[in-house]
Amino acid sequence: MKALRWHGPRDLRLVDLVDSALQPGEVRVRVAYCGICGSDLHEYVDGPHAIPVDCAHPISGRRAPLTLGHEFCGTVVESAALEIRVGARVAIEPEYRCGTCDYCRQGQYNRCISMGFVGLMGDGALAETVVVPAYTVHDLPDEVRFDQAAVLEPAAVALHAVRTSGLRPGDACAVFGMGPVGLLTVAMLRQCGAGEIIAVDVQAGRLGLAGAMGASKIVDASREDSASAVFGATSGKGAAIAFEVAGLQATIDSTLACLRKGGEAVLVGLMGKAQIDVFDIVNRELRLTTSVGYRDVFPPLIAWTAKGLIDPSVIVTRKVTLTQAVPQGFEALISDKDQVKVLVAPNGEDVR
Amino acid sequence: MKALRWHGPRDLRLVDLVDSALQPGEVRVRVAYCGICGSDLHEYVDGPHAIPVDCAHPISGRRAPLTLGHEFCGTVVESAALEIRVGARVAIEPEYRCGTCDYCRQGQYNRCISMGFVGLMGDGALAETVVVPAYTVHDLPDEVRFDQAAVLEPAAVALHAVRTSGLRPGDACAVFGMGPVGLLTVAMLRQCGAGEIIAVDVQAGRLGLAGAMGASKIVDASREDSASAVFGATSGKGAAIAFEVAGLQATIDSTLACLRKGGEAVLVGLMGKAQIDVFDIVNRELRLTTSVGYRDVFPPLIAWTAKGLIDPSVIVTRKVTLTQAVPQGFEALISDKDQVKVLVAPNGEDVR
Repeated sequence: MKALRWHGPRDLRLVDLVDSALQPGEVRVRVAYCGICGSDLHEYVDGPHAIPVDCAHPISGRRAPLTLGHEFCGTVVESAALEIRVGARVAIEPEYRCGTCDYCRQGQYNRCISMGFVGLMGDGALAETVVVPAYTVHDLPDEVRFDQAAVLEPAAVALHAVRTSGLRPGDACAVFGMGPVGLLTVAMLRQCGAGEIIAVDVQAGRLGLAGAMGASKIVDASREDSASAVFGATSGKGAAIAFEVAGLQATIDSTLACLRKGGEAVLVGLMGKAQIDVFDIVNRELRLTTSVGYRDVFPPLIAWTAKGLIDPSVIVTRKVTLTQAVPQGFEALISDKDQVKVLVAPNGEDVR
Repeated sequence: MKALRWHGPRDLRLVDLVDSALQPGEVRVRVAYCGICGSDLHEYVDGPHAIPVDCAHPISGRRAPLTLGHEFCGTVVESAALEIRVGARVAIEPEYRCGTCDYCRQGQYNRCISMGFVGLMGDGALAETVVVPAYTVHDLPDEVRFDQAAVLEPAAVALHAVRTSGLRPGDACAVFGMGPVGLLTVAMLRQCGAGEIIAVDVQAGRLGLAGAMGASKIVDASREDSASAVFGATSGKGAAIAFEVAGLQATIDSTLACLRKGGEAVLVGLMGKAQIDVFDIVNRELRLTTSVGYRDVFPPLIAWTAKGLIDPSVIVTRKVTLTQAVPQGFEALISDKDQVKVLVAPNGEDVR
C-alpha cells in the first residue's frame, strides 16, 4: 500500500509498504479522507517537533521515518478486535493512551503520561490503509459523510476547548485566530449556546468563513483594535470567555484585554514563552484555562453532524490525491492563505 | 481623635482630627485593633500605589492625605444606619462598592468598577475612630476576640482564593510564600478539607508558623527544589492546586512546575509582568486562576472562629499603640522578618 512518509523536514516520500500483520486489539482502516493539520505542516517545514526520532514511542513502538496524518476516517477492512466489524464506516480519535496511568484511570486519557497521536508518534493515514488501536474507533451513522468525518478531529480540539471553559449559555465569547480550529471553535460556540460570538483575524477570506460558521460579529484586527471591538460588540462589558487559537504574544495580549472582570482566557494555540501582566490579570480576577487534544467529544460531534446541527466540512477548501498531497496540499497551505483545510483521498474518494 | 495619616512615602503623621458628621448609612467605630498590611507597607515605603492623590475616590470622596488601616474591628459608637446599633462589637469588611454597576448587581462586589478599600482609598482605622459604610459591618459573637477579628481581613483574602479555586476535598495543595496571607491560606485549606498541604518559604520562622496553621509538609526553598519536594510529598503525582502568594517570577515558576497535569495555579501575589511557558502549560492543561479581595466570606470566617475551628490570631506577633505604630510596626515589619502580623491598638486595648 502507498503511504506518505516523513523522513525529515521538506522530505515527505511516497513509498510502497507491505501491510503489517495486526496485533490483537488493532484494526486496519482503508482511508477515505485524511486532513492536513497545522502540526503536520510544522513537521514538514522544520520538524521533528512531535515525531520521535531517537527513541520509539512507548505505545506505538514507532519512530521516524513514519507516515503522517491524524485527521481521518474510512472503512474497516480487517479487525483483530471483537467489537469492531469489517465493513464499518468509522472516524478515528487518534490519541494513543496507555490505559493504566493515573490520568487514564481517571478517564483523562488526553493527559496520559505516554500520550501521543496516530500520524505523529505512530504511522498515520496519509496512506491507503492505516492500523489503529480499537479504542480509537468510532462508528459513523450513514448520515455523516466521509468529508465531514475527516474534520471531526480538529472539531474535537475545538469542542474540548469549549468544554474545558466555564461557558454558560448566553455568554459573550471572542475567538482570536480563524485557522481551522478557530473556525470550528466558532461553530462549537454557536452549537453550545454562546451569546455574542466575535471572530477575530486579519484575513478577509477566513473572516468570511467565520460568518458561515456562526460568528455574530467579525473583527479584522488589521483594521481596528480587536479588544476595543469586542467591548463595542458587548455594550462595553467585554467578553466572558476569549479563545486564543493563534499562539502569538499579540493575540494573547488582545485575548486578555477584551475580557470583562472575572473573564476567562482559553489558551489553545501553542507558542513558547509569553509575557503576562500579573498585576492586571489578578486585579481583574481573570482566569487562564488551557486545552490540549480532546476526550469524550467524538460521540456528540458525530451525533450533531448526523442531525445537521453542525457541518465541519464547511472549512474544507480542497480535496487532493495522495500524489498531489505535497504540492497541492502541504505547499498550498504554506503559500496560499485562502486554503483552510485540505483533505487527501489516498484511495481516490470523490476528489475534486 | 488621633489618626495616623499618609502624607507621602516615609511620611506618616500622627494628627488630631475633629470627628466628621455621619452621612446616612454610615457608622462610627471605635477601633479595637487594626493590623498593618503588606499594602500599607508598600504605601509607606514608596507610595502612592493605591492611594488616590490627584482625584478623589468616586465612593469615599477622599484623597491623600488620608488615614491608613483596613484590617480592623471595634465597637460601634454612633450609627446613622437603622440596622446597626450603638455598642455592637463588629468586624469590618473594608471594600467600598457602588452597588449599581454590572458586577455589584451580580453580587460580585469585589469586582465593582469603583472598588476600593477603606484605609487605602478612604480614611482607615489607624485612628481612634473610623467612619465606614453600614454594608461593611459584620456583627461579632462574644466568642470571637478582637485580636482574632482584626485578622479576619487577610483571612478573607485567603478564603476567597481557596473558594475561587476548584478545590475538592482531599486535593493535594501547595502554598508558596508564608507571609500573612500564605499562612492563612494554609489554615483555610486545612479547614476546607484539602489533602496534603505543602507550605513553601525560605524562612525558618515562617515555616514554623505554617506547621501551626496546619501544613502537613514544610519545604524550605532555600535548601531544596520546591517543585521536586512537592512531587516527593505527593507520591510523584504533583499538586492538584498551588497558591502563589509571593508575587515573584521564581515562585510563579515553581507554582506551575509542582502541578500535576490538569492542575490549577492560583495567583494571589501581585507583581508586574511574568514570563509563562505557554507550550508547557497548554500541554499539561494547567489552569491559572487569580483572586483579588473577597466577597461573601466574612460570615463563615466569623462562624468558624467562634466555633474554634480556625484561629486567625495565631499569626499575630506583636501588639503596639498608635504612637508606637511607625517604629515598632511599619519599621519592624520591614527590618525584622520574624514579625508577621502587627496589630495596632489605637485605644490602648490589651497591648503587650
